[in-house]
Amino acid sequence: MLGRQPAGLSDHHLDHKSHSATPIGNPCQQPLPSPMLAWRQALTKSLDANSKVPFSKFFQLATIRHDGRPTNRTMVFRGFYKDTDRLTFTTDIRSKKYDDLRTHSKAAEICWYFTESREQFRLNGDLTVIDKDEEDPELVQARKQAWSEMSTSGRSWFTWPKPGLPRGPDEQFQIEPPGPEEPPLPSFCLVIMDVMEVDHLELRSSIRHSYSSQLDSDGERLWHEEDVNP
Amino acid sequence: MLGRQPAGLSDHHLDHKSHSATPIGNPCQQPLPSPMLAWRQALTKSLDANSKVPFSKFFQLATIRHDGRPTNRTMVFRGFYKDTDRLTFTTDIRSKKYDDLRTHSKAAEICWYFTESREQFRLNGDLTVIDKDEEDPELVQARKQAWSEMSTSGRSWFTWPKPGLPRGPDEQFQIEPPGPEEPPLPSFCLVIMDVMEVDHLELRSSIRHSYSSQLDSDGERLWHEEDVNP
Ligand SMILES: Cc1cc2nc3c(=O)[nH]c(=O)nc-3n(C[C@H](O)[C@H](O)[C@H](O)COP(=O)(O)O)c2cc1C
Ligand SMILES: Cc1cc2nc3c(=O)[nH]c(=O)nc-3n(C[C@H](O)[C@H](O)[C@H](O)COP(=O)(O)O)c2cc1C
Repeated sequence: MLGRQPAGLSDHHLDHKSHSATPIGNPCQQPLPSPMLAWRQALTKSLDANSKVPFSKFFQLATIRHDGRPTNRTMVFRGFYKDTDRLTFTTDIRSKKYDDLRTHSKAAEICWYFTESREQFRLNGDLTVIDKDEEDPELVQARKQAWSEMSTSGRSWFTWPKPGLPRGPDEQFQIEPPGPEEPPLPSFCLVIMDVMEVDHLELRSSIRHSYSSQLDSDGERLWHEEDVNP
Repeated sequence: MLGRQPAGLSDHHLDHKSHSATPIGNPCQQPLPSPMLAWRQALTKSLDANSKVPFSKFFQLATIRHDGRPTNRTMVFRGFYKDTDRLTFTTDIRSKKYDDLRTHSKAAEICWYFTESREQFRLNGDLTVIDKDEEDPELVQARKQAWSEMSTSGRSWFTWPKPGLPRGPDEQFQIEPPGPEEPPLPSFCLVIMDVMEVDHLELRSSIRHSYSSQLDSDGERLWHEEDVNP
């Protein structure tokens, strides 16, 4: 298991830090290969184990609507942001979730069920939207790259008429989208999730791992892991 | 399409009522076979079309935690309540969601993705919990019946130590549960969802049906259906 293990805690109670360039316990202060958080290691393993199932990249994302009710929809996982533990996905700025996230609440929980390995991951965290008005050059670049990695049919969603309005005529659904190397359409945005809690349930063994975190005085996220009853 | 169709509305704008014993337009006042709501008809069709996939009865249920953040987990569909349009599932009164539902918010959204037919249903509504203290005889009976329809491994979850506490010793997971005809364990409860909004997305055709409802002066739910942009 990676990370620091405080004295007096059993194997089932592990504390470790989010990825940082120079982890504690590296006396030479040379950048070590980034230690992967235990939950991210487990999630990566599940993604591998279920990779032959095309829908293993789909999860359900719950957020809060402007009227305070929960809402929930399927989304496609688009990988981790660079070498961090932040998850990315893409959406349309004309969708309801965009408005809810921008004006009401950034809080979200992903529920991800892997049908082959029979495991569930629940990831609770906050969402950040990277849209056409983004100014941070790194994030502008990340949005461009996410666009370039979308399939043609994925890109064409962003040419369609405004989501949720009465169905438009068929011609409005037959517009060729810009290519992967062209600038993203204005409706396209990238969403990044900062994960704060993870619940990992393995149905086969009835083992449930609970990961919680808090920020330390340096603003670094300190993780705590515990096995709990399912 | 079932239900009343008001004049002046196209095929894509249909209004119809929730199931009632004597629908409007039955001059003889004899009970007609219950008209099935359009969304329920579509959902029933999807359940049939995906029935060979064992996990097609699993959906993700989003609710609100006591701290106001959304939460989301996989649940098993346990059928409609009698001949109504209300969905049922079962849970443990010692789980977090039970407390959240009882003390914080009954609002929920189900997201249900069918992998074979590539359709998504989102059902927004309120949840009612039927636990061991229920007094309504019909609901007491419904809870008993739900218990009797659980598999042995489903029933054994309710003998396990309190969910979320540090993992108990193995012996605590080896208790034989009461049989299907015996009274349900005190930790067992039935949950019923009253659906208020439905969003049905067919990925293959990119067709999205939106169903909304309101209560009329008789307390009957009046449904409105519209095709919208995905
Ligand atoms: C399999 C599948 C994958 C989907 N992937 C995404 C996605 O990656 N991003 C997205 O915005 N919507 C995706 N959708 C559509 C959403 O589920 C939802 O219908 C849409 O985003 C509108 O949601 P909203 O009204 O809550 O904003 C997907 C739907 C399905 C069925
Ligand atoms: C495939 C699958 C099916 C599940 N079905 C149920 C269910 O029907 N009822 C239930 O309470 N929990 C079910 N669970 C467990 C829940 O997902 C969740 O871990 C548990 O209910 C605790 O949730 P809570 O802490 O939000 O209350 C299921 C989990 C999986 C992976």
